[in-house]
Formats: sequence, C-alpha cells, structure tokens
Amino acid sequence: MSENKKLNLLVFSGDYDKALAALILANGAKEIGMDVTIFFAFWGLLIARDPDKVSKRKKNIFEKMFGFCTPKGVESLSLSKMNMGGMGQKMLRKMMKDKDKPLLIHFLQGARKKDIKFYGCKLSQEVMGFDKEELIPELEIIEVYEYLKDAMESEIQLFI
Amino acid sequence: MSENKKLNLLVFSGDYDKALAALILANGAKEIGMDVTIFFAFWGLLIARDPDKVSKRKKNIFEKMFGFCTPKGVESLSLSKMNMGGMGQKMLRKMMKDKDKPLLIHFLQGARKKDIKFYGCKLSQEVMGFDKEELIPELEIIEVYEYLKDAMESEIQLFI
Amino acid sequence: MSENKKLNLLVFSGDYDKALAALILANGAKEIGMDVTIFFAFWGLLIARDPDKVSKRKKNIFEKMFGFCTPKGVESLSLSKMNMGGMGQKMLRKMMKDKDKPLLIHFLQGARKKDIKFYGCKLSQEVMGFDKEELIPELEIIEVYEYLKDAMESEIQLFI
Repeated sequence: MSENKKLNLLVFSGDYDKALAALILANGAKEIGMDVTIFFAFWGLLIARDPDKVSKRKKNIFEKMFGFCTPKGVESLSLSKMNMGGMGQKMLRKMMKDKDKPLLIHFLQGARKKDIKFYGCKLSQEVMGFDKEELIPELEIIEVYEYLKDAMESEIQLFI
Repeated sequence: MSENKKLNLLVFSGDYDKALAALILANGAKEIGMDVTIFFAFWGLLIARDPDKVSKRKKNIFEKMFGFCTPKGVESLSLSKMNMGGMGQKMLRKMMKDKDKPLLIHFLQGARKKDIKFYGCKLSQEVMGFDKEELIPELEIIEVYEYLKDAMESEIQLFI
Repeated sequence: MSENKKLNLLVFSGDYDKALAALILANGAKEIGMDVTIFFAFWGLLIARDPDKVSKRKKNIFEKMFGFCTPKGVESLSLSKMNMGGMGQKMLRKMMKDKDKPLLIHFLQGARKKDIKFYGCKLSQEVMGFDKEELIPELEIIEVYEYLKDAMESEIQLFI
C-alpha cells in the first residue's frame, strides 16, 4: 500500500462550479504527490459521463426532465447558483477564458491523465439508469462500503 | 472507548437527495462495523422530526413560509435541484421504487434501528423554534463544542 | 508547530445560512482550543469582502449579474434555500434576533478577533476579479496546494 497522503472526494453535486472545485482539488493534490480518489454519486455521475457517448444516449422522459441530456458534455453543466438559465454559466466560462484559466473540461482531462482513481456509486447508477458504457471507461462502479473503506484511510475527505 | 472506526456526518441540508446520501452512508458505515454519529443542524433538523408528531405541530407564519409544514414527513422533502415543484422529487422516488430500492424513510428507519447516534444542534433548534418533543426521541440536543469533539475523533467527517 | 487539534474549512458557498454554519463552527472550535483555518473559494469570497470597501467597488456587468453588489456586506447574503427574493433571509435574521442570537456579522467579527487564519483562493480571486484590497486585510491569498497541505494536517476538514 502506498505511503502517500490521500485525498478522497465524494462528488454528489453535478454543478459546473462545484465540479470545478472538485477537479481543481484533485489535480492539485496529485501535483503535490497525493493519491486521489473521486467517488461520483447521484448528480455527480453527470460529470463522469463519457463525452464520446453522450449524444448517442437514448433518454426516457424521466431522464429528460432531470436534465440528463447534456449534449455538449461537462461544459454545459449548470452553476449551483446565479445560473440564470445558463447565462451565468456562460459568463463564468468567459471570465475564465479571459483570464487564461483552464475550463472544467480541461481539469477533467487533466485528472484522467493523472492516474486519479474514479469510482461511481452503484446505487445512483442503477436508480438513475446510466449504463456502465455511458460513463468514462476508467470509472469503476462500487458500493458505498468500498467508498467508506477508501475514505477512512484518507487524510482528507470532502463531500462536494 | 470503542476502537471502531468512526463516521461523523454534519447534516446541514434538508433536501431529499442529500438526506438520502447521508443516510445511505450512515447505514453502510454501520454495516461494516463503524460507529456513526449524525449531527443535524439548520435545515437538517427537518429530517429528524418525529413522524408521529409532525401533523400536530402548530406553525407560526415564519415556519409556514420556511416550508416547515411537511405533513407526510421526510418523504415530502424537496430535491436540492430539479425539484420542479415536487414533480422531480416524485419522479426520483418512482425511479427508486421501480428499481426496488429503499426510500429515504426506509434508510432513516434502518438508521434508527442500528444504534446510530443522532444529535441535534441546540442553536438551530432554538432559532427555528422546534420543540424537543417534535424531534425523534433518540435525538440528543448538543452544542457545537460537542459536535467538534466527536468529529475530531472520527476517521471520516463530512458536511452534507 | 502547534500541538493543538485543527479545524480546516473550505468555504465554497456564499450563502448566508452556510456562512453562518461555517463561522459558528470556526468560533466554537477556537473556543475549545483548536487551531482554525478558513479557505474561502469561489462564492465564499463574498463572505471575506472588507465591509469598509464594499460600497466603493466599481462593478462590471459580469460582477453585477453575479450579484457581487452587496452594499450592506455579509448581512445581505442570500439563503441557500427559501430565500424568496430576500424575504426568507430577513425572516431568519428576525428569528435570530428574537432569540437574542448573534448574526452572521457578529460571528465574522468574532472570528476576526480570535486569531483564526483566513485564506482566499488565488484562482477564484483572479477569475472573479476581486482586488486584494477589497478583501479583509488579514486574508492571505494562497494556491490550492497550500490549502491541501493545511487540510491534510487537520483533524477535521469540511467543504461547506
């Protein structure tokens, strides 16, 4: 077992701004030599959708109403507040671009290259009707017990 | 003092989906032998209302406006997003039933049978005007200091 | 290095109720001898604005739309739910005053007198266009790496 310090994130939210916070933390932790695991649950699974599969997905009426049709991937997620029908989100992304900051998609791509461990919550996946194939391939579906075991061995655990 | 690993949850939210996350974690932790404490604060106190007392409660104008009249108990809490006037919440519950998953009320009942320690925040209780009698009987009202002492001895602490 | 137990808060939210929770925890922890650091990120930076500078700030169209014009300081922040255009927030404050409880501004002032360490997230500050001068003077701007180092040495870490 690794002797590195560990960061464990339970990402419950599917909001653009909170996803950004989670992935900035994850990338930053990896850069200073920590081991990082992210457990995506509930709305958080929206962040872990495979961008190559997003548009092909057939949606039922529930999924449509829950806003699961995000054709452009994570860059089309909403803000947790001040979203204003997407205008607030667009504005934030413009402010980030103007300051030459990476966007959520870049932090996610960075995380995927950095040997960060991605987990998805089995119960959430089943309830929400995501197929394993729709989620990024390196994501492993686990139960809450495995999340807890990983979390209890981590120096930092956050619920985002 | 117990040598078990400990999970400590500060449940601030009174949303159906976040309450679900908290209680799934609490039940799961107990099932793998952890000690679990839940500290309900602010909106979280809505989850800890005694279902047998809910309908008898007289409400003042503030409590009414804060949505404290939840005649059906926890199953009538709102979603943190996509609630759509309750329709989103109904849909989620339908999706859970269709997949034979327990609902929030069942996870709460499970937790109450599992020797999980329930705490309520004294300040929140006073400000929001809940009587001790309206909350589930096994809930103990404590101050923030006691929460902190419990949290610092826990392997996992989450703010939900 | 201090041998005190440590509380580390990552305050992402700029909501009145969540800020209240964070500052009650911070003050309480300090009162029982813990070391406390608060890392304000994203919306959380709204809590760390210098009340003496708030009204002088010139705002651009983005900042206006993001609701960054809070002329009365932290006491004019919104609730995370039931805000109802500010009416819910006013009601909560009235309920707190009626019960002789301190308001957010008092908990913030208390924290500022208690040798709590305030950090601000560099990336958030740059993206959102806050000048260092607009934030409370004791706040130190740091990168995510420094937050992580502080958090991993803390007994309790929460994302609020």
